[in-house]
Amino acid sequence: MTLLVALTWDPKPWVERFRLHLPEHPIAVLGEDFDRSRVRYVATWGPKPGSLSDLPALEAIFSLGAGVDHLMGYPNLPNVPIVRVSQDDLTHRMSEYVVMHCLIHLRDQRRYDADQRAKRWDSDRAPPIAGDVRVGVMGFGALGQDAAYKLKVMGFDVAGWSRTPKSVEGFEIFSGEAGLDAFLARTDILVSLLPLTPETRGILNLSLFRKLARNGRLGGPILINAGRGGSQVEADILACLDDGTLKAATLDVFEVEPLPQESPLWTHPRVTVSPHNSAVSDPEMTARYIAGQIRRHEAGEPFQNVVDQARGY
Amino acid sequence: MTLLVALTWDPKPWVERFRLHLPEHPIAVLGEDFDRSRVRYVATWGPKPGSLSDLPALEAIFSLGAGVDHLMGYPNLPNVPIVRVSQDDLTHRMSEYVVMHCLIHLRDQRRYDADQRAKRWDSDRAPPIAGDVRVGVMGFGALGQDAAYKLKVMGFDVAGWSRTPKSVEGFEIFSGEAGLDAFLARTDILVSLLPLTPETRGILNLSLFRKLARNGRLGGPILINAGRGGSQVEADILACLDDGTLKAATLDVFEVEPLPQESPLWTHPRVTVSPHNSAVSDPEMTARYIAGQIRRHEAGEPFQNVVDQARGY
Repeated sequence: MTLLVALTWDPKPWVERFRLHLPEHPIAVLGEDFDRSRVRYVATWGPKPGSLSDLPALEAIFSLGAGVDHLMGYPNLPNVPIVRVSQDDLTHRMSEYVVMHCLIHLRDQRRYDADQRAKRWDSDRAPPIAGDVRVGVMGFGALGQDAAYKLKVMGFDVAGWSRTPKSVEGFEIFSGEAGLDAFLARTDILVSLLPLTPETRGILNLSLFRKLARNGRLGGPILINAGRGGSQVEADILACLDDGTLKAATLDVFEVEPLPQESPLWTHPRVTVSPHNSAVSDPEMTARYIAGQIRRHEAGEPFQNVVDQARGY
Repeated sequence: MTLLVALTWDPKPWVERFRLHLPEHPIAVLGEDFDRSRVRYVATWGPKPGSLSDLPALEAIFSLGAGVDHLMGYPNLPNVPIVRVSQDDLTHRMSEYVVMHCLIHLRDQRRYDADQRAKRWDSDRAPPIAGDVRVGVMGFGALGQDAAYKLKVMGFDVAGWSRTPKSVEGFEIFSGEAGLDAFLARTDILVSLLPLTPETRGILNLSLFRKLARNGRLGGPILINAGRGGSQVEADILACLDDGTLKAATLDVFEVEPLPQESPLWTHPRVTVSPHNSAVSDPEMTARYIAGQIRRHEAGEPFQNVVDQARGY
């Protein structure tokens, strides 16, 4: 029975890896000819709505990447488990991204880059150290907790915010609507790793940015969004950068991706843009993970990391 | 009795902090009028050779910053203890610098910066993760060990090199001439935090760069020097960047500082220049540290962190 690969990226390296790790299963590619009645599994990211319907033998969908919001709005989604590909690999890459960008802001590295271009030797500035800066991590699941731990080792003063009450040793975690204002009031660098759900759509907006700490050591609050673009209101980010409500923003995700050429975010002097690559899935690690899950399932055990479709993540 | 502040930087914020934390001692500034016979302590960085001689009541020199090589070559240095200002603060700042720049190289951040300037959305590259990259830390004292620990938490595969044999749990440490080649052969990112001594002068040269690993995941070895400029041969760094022996270099220190305007390092596309600010001393923390040491001394206890003048650090 077949594994169907349904990707918006070049599927070639993926197909290669799946063939290697699942030699007992034929591999089909969406867009080429294949027998829909024989598809038992789908490994997917971002295919057109409808392209996954009419698969009568389907037993599971594997979502490549940490989020599954790209599948949640689909009509006629087959009623099978959606398995999130949650690898250490992805978690580590995300923490690398978050720690690197927090350090770049802490140390004002963009200004040193500009100094280098101008051949300017200005060694008199003494930036704050990490211990002087409060980072707030929104979304305190596997990704958020790993990033928070590493930020703390680097010396940052870290707290978390989570939709539901949560307790993780070593961290103050605020939760729900009730905890949001207090969380924002102690946050100099806001890191969003939130999944996209109806509750988080547009949550990173003017009214939230106005509640961030204004007494910090960085000269204004900073936003890092490595969660989902649907959580942010880009017009509000731009307005807040211009009126000083935000000092800077580092964005890996956008309302529309790829980020349109005409977006002012590309050229804003205090915005850092990256192409939704904070935590890129690796074909080798992903194929190994999915092969392991398929073997569990075929041995009669349940899948791991199954999405709660009511909650949306 | 007087504390003399002898700095090549603007002494004002320093004098302010010393006055606050040492209210019982008059504070004098080199370059202004003061009574040389009453100077009991000097807090100094980089004054002209000779400016610290003829201080008959001197009891100690406090060296601001982690290194003391700026004092070692001085003629007629008074025969008093030289106390290194070794604060956690400095150590933490250095680790922030080292981890940030290792992550920037790991994630090819300079290329993403260029992509942003060109409005190019290229999300197809999947860089290695930290676990695929071997960092070698030369100089495994307080600074080196803190940086190594934090690099390891970020996932990097870290080893150390030290002049004398050393054992630190969790790290393979190579030592001496005998261990250098094996250390270099397993190093993708070389981080130098070496003090400047006769043995380390010019050690970062062509012959050393040729021994770095050529089978790494970053497309060539990378040099990060946050130790001392006298350890590096800049002509060799430039030649190695051009013939591929080195892929990139991040330099915080230089043979001549400030880095001369005509240096090709400023504009080399694969060189990152920073103005010897990887670990800037903070007036507040430094003044507190020195006040504490003076109180110890005046209570009859020995100074801490006294430099071994034979070893040179």
